[in-house]
Amino acid sequence: MSKEFFSRTENYSEWYNQIVEKADLAEHSAVRGCMVIKPYGFAIWEKMQAALDKMFKDTGHVNAYFPLLIPKSFFSKEASHVEGFAKECAVVTHYRLRTSDDGKGIVVDESAKLEEELIIRPTSETIIWNTYKGWIESYRDLPLLINQWANVVRWEMRTRLFLRTAEFLWQEGHTAHATAEEAIAETEKMLDVYADFAENWMAVPVLKGVKTANERFAGAIETYCIEALMQDGKALQAGTSHFLGQNFAKAFDVKFTNKEGKLDHVWATSWGVSTRLMGALVMAHSDDQGLVLPPKLAPFQVVIVPIYKGNDQLQTVSEAALRIKKELEAKGISVKYDDRDTQRPGWKFAEYEFKGVPVRIAIGERDVQNGTVEVARRDTKEKESLQQTNIGEKIAHLLEQIQDNLYKRAVDRRNEQTNHASSYEEFKKILDEKSGFVYAHWDGSAETEQKIKEETKATIRCIPLNNKKENGTCIVSGKPSSQKVVFARAY
Amino acid sequence: MSKEFFSRTENYSEWYNQIVEKADLAEHSAVRGCMVIKPYGFAIWEKMQAALDKMFKDTGHVNAYFPLLIPKSFFSKEASHVEGFAKECAVVTHYRLRTSDDGKGIVVDESAKLEEELIIRPTSETIIWNTYKGWIESYRDLPLLINQWANVVRWEMRTRLFLRTAEFLWQEGHTAHATAEEAIAETEKMLDVYADFAENWMAVPVLKGVKTANERFAGAIETYCIEALMQDGKALQAGTSHFLGQNFAKAFDVKFTNKEGKLDHVWATSWGVSTRLMGALVMAHSDDQGLVLPPKLAPFQVVIVPIYKGNDQLQTVSEAALRIKKELEAKGISVKYDDRDTQRPGWKFAEYEFKGVPVRIAIGERDVQNGTVEVARRDTKEKESLQQTNIGEKIAHLLEQIQDNLYKRAVDRRNEQTNHASSYEEFKKILDEKSGFVYAHWDGSAETEQKIKEETKATIRCIPLNNKKENGTCIVSGKPSSQKVVFARAY
Repeated sequence: MSKEFFSRTENYSEWYNQIVEKADLAEHSAVRGCMVIKPYGFAIWEKMQAALDKMFKDTGHVNAYFPLLIPKSFFSKEASHVEGFAKECAVVTHYRLRTSDDGKGIVVDESAKLEEELIIRPTSETIIWNTYKGWIESYRDLPLLINQWANVVRWEMRTRLFLRTAEFLWQEGHTAHATAEEAIAETEKMLDVYADFAENWMAVPVLKGVKTANERFAGAIETYCIEALMQDGKALQAGTSHFLGQNFAKAFDVKFTNKEGKLDHVWATSWGVSTRLMGALVMAHSDDQGLVLPPKLAPFQVVIVPIYKGNDQLQTVSEAALRIKKELEAKGISVKYDDRDTQRPGWKFAEYEFKGVPVRIAIGERDVQNGTVEVARRDTKEKESLQQTNIGEKIAHLLEQIQDNLYKRAVDRRNEQTNHASSYEEFKKILDEKSGFVYAHWDGSAETEQKIKEETKATIRCIPLNNKKENGTCIVSGKPSSQKVVFARAY
Repeated sequence: MSKEFFSRTENYSEWYNQIVEKADLAEHSAVRGCMVIKPYGFAIWEKMQAALDKMFKDTGHVNAYFPLLIPKSFFSKEASHVEGFAKECAVVTHYRLRTSDDGKGIVVDESAKLEEELIIRPTSETIIWNTYKGWIESYRDLPLLINQWANVVRWEMRTRLFLRTAEFLWQEGHTAHATAEEAIAETEKMLDVYADFAENWMAVPVLKGVKTANERFAGAIETYCIEALMQDGKALQAGTSHFLGQNFAKAFDVKFTNKEGKLDHVWATSWGVSTRLMGALVMAHSDDQGLVLPPKLAPFQVVIVPIYKGNDQLQTVSEAALRIKKELEAKGISVKYDDRDTQRPGWKFAEYEFKGVPVRIAIGERDVQNGTVEVARRDTKEKESLQQTNIGEKIAHLLEQIQDNLYKRAVDRRNEQTNHASSYEEFKKILDEKSGFVYAHWDGSAETEQKIKEETKATIRCIPLNNKKENGTCIVSGKPSSQKVVFARAY
């Protein structure tokens, strides 16, 4: 497997593609730009969903479901939203096919043309705010704290598995509030939930910040984001949380009677993360031997491989292995016991290493006699022989160590790849030689931002929250600046 | 609320619509035929999903995700499938919109026309078998036991919330096997899973059987189904499991090397249940006071309503209520404590009755003094005063009783509405006067089946599994018959 496999330094992009495909996470489908998420990859996504869903519910949100199809005219109602979303999208124009005249195939039935075209949702603000209009009359109906798990379609010309696909899976929260303060607090709260999930589940450190006007969500007053750094020094936007002000309430005429008995437009937020997180997860931890998964998101955390010759040995070894499996499961650890006789242990070792299983336990007849097992951890590739006594506790502890180690490793890597530039020359040199996050003074203008983007391909990833105030001058225009912002080339 | 509310006998159809809308389960959206599933309704669907998903996993299945969009040509590959599914569907023809020439709106960009139209999946056999082609080479790759939770679109002209909508949510299992026997066993196993779920979670008794050729899934060799009876005597198909033979493997050229080293086509099944089950759940148990939910699927099983005057009383009552809540939750019971001061107790009683909460606990200051609570069950509307001692155990037991009672009530109702007809006259009389399931001899011909359907609107719901063999003559043609089959008018 590793023979035909590109290392990160050889070809980072191919390295990524190969891990996604060969570790059975996802593959391209017959439909341009759409992916198939394979069972092993989907099991990781299910773990992400379960953790996030619990976090949403613990913060008072409920789930609902809104239509896949949105009338075209809805997109024109919010002026900036239409620019951002109504362009590259899948358009449903007809609702029937018929047998072709030659009888050999099927063709679109031209008599079944829709009066108004329907758009497959690229995001659901419009259809949801159109619905909220019927749900909100008074401050007593607020806040509405609703989330939706859904598929969306954005017609992308250049696609990459998980990172950028025409169809992807995501969740989109859409909340409605009586005051701007409450909506802003919600926007920030959900950003914290995302950062918590990225760091404590995915083991990926993130910068929290706000986007510049240029990079804002179409229709937002303020876009908050979490930004992660991949091993190649490119940034990846891992989640966004938008304060939408009263824009959508005005576009869809959603008013409420406040406590003072006066009519006012409702305040809104929206926030989302998607299967893009799968790409971030792969790129954050994996190595030249394949996928590396944090224990909290691994479909199974431990694989046990029996080493044996003949059925007698298998029986002895299996008894011990199944006892250990039970002990681990009693500690809440998920375990796969792979006693297939169609593959050799060495093949299995390589397979599970490539698939990123955090801990591998091998057990042979000598181990049974000695009361030991061989334990290998995926992150450091260290192996050790452990006594079977209290094996559940030992492995539970090891899994915690691995989770922590992956996070620390990612933090160290990010720190190494974070630099400060005091001139445009230095800025460009860092980008070309070291890549990563670059802190630099910026004059706050869209023109400078655009010039830097055109000349270096670096964008402002965010203005960090609680950013240090320090006077300086813009690296491009020389104009005064009160704080540095974070630049990077990005996915 | 109940004032403007139709009873079942007044208008069964309106009664259903009102429960769905007023109990906040779902509503029509701005998009023709598409519904919004509201948070309370979606919470029930989530409980259904969780229970089914666990059953699928316990029987060895894994989840995956396949594209929403399917190339038009895929539908032509399986001859009977195209007839059944490629007709009424949503067709994507373009991938871009542009600002209209007058600058006032957006229009379809004619330069962005797809070479081949894409169909929003009405079901996924074609795209999945096209994918399986790349996954299956040898018997070692089999069986593939994969399920998908997804949205699908079938362009229906007449829609009803949950029962028939253009877009609906469902799961679709798609499995691949080395032998016909194994595939048939899988088809039957999943039918059993569905029946188990319907009876033990939804408290809805179902008939298990096979469909006649006329009613089979387009592309199936045999369609198994579970059939439920609603309170108005109409049947509702609640789930189907299809043995697809080698039809899709042949259409998509999916072959495997068997143990003998020979190439053969793969054997297939598919099986699904949908948000239609929500409609069945509503119609099976609800009454003229609103929704009635089985405890196992209720978003919350118990609501506690405090009865008080003034803040001092509220504090005393709340302390007791929260202690009881904790005790119930320790027993795994989900509880809502509604201490809103914006609504009176009577309003809350009516609200939770209408929303079908299985158990309501009311507690006032006198209860606190006496160590009692007032407990009302939704199914029978009985009320009793209970000592607070061991309240957790008592309510847990009561919830089991309610679950059992709903099932028994539904079984009794079905038995009352199940009849046998020995002549066509009697058959028609039963249908018109009593409705329900009618067992009758049928000659096995599609013509007779069609004639009965045209003349009475009754269809053969199924030929029950393990059906009693008994010689007789067809009620229409007088030809010999070896068993009775089950007819009904249906949703």
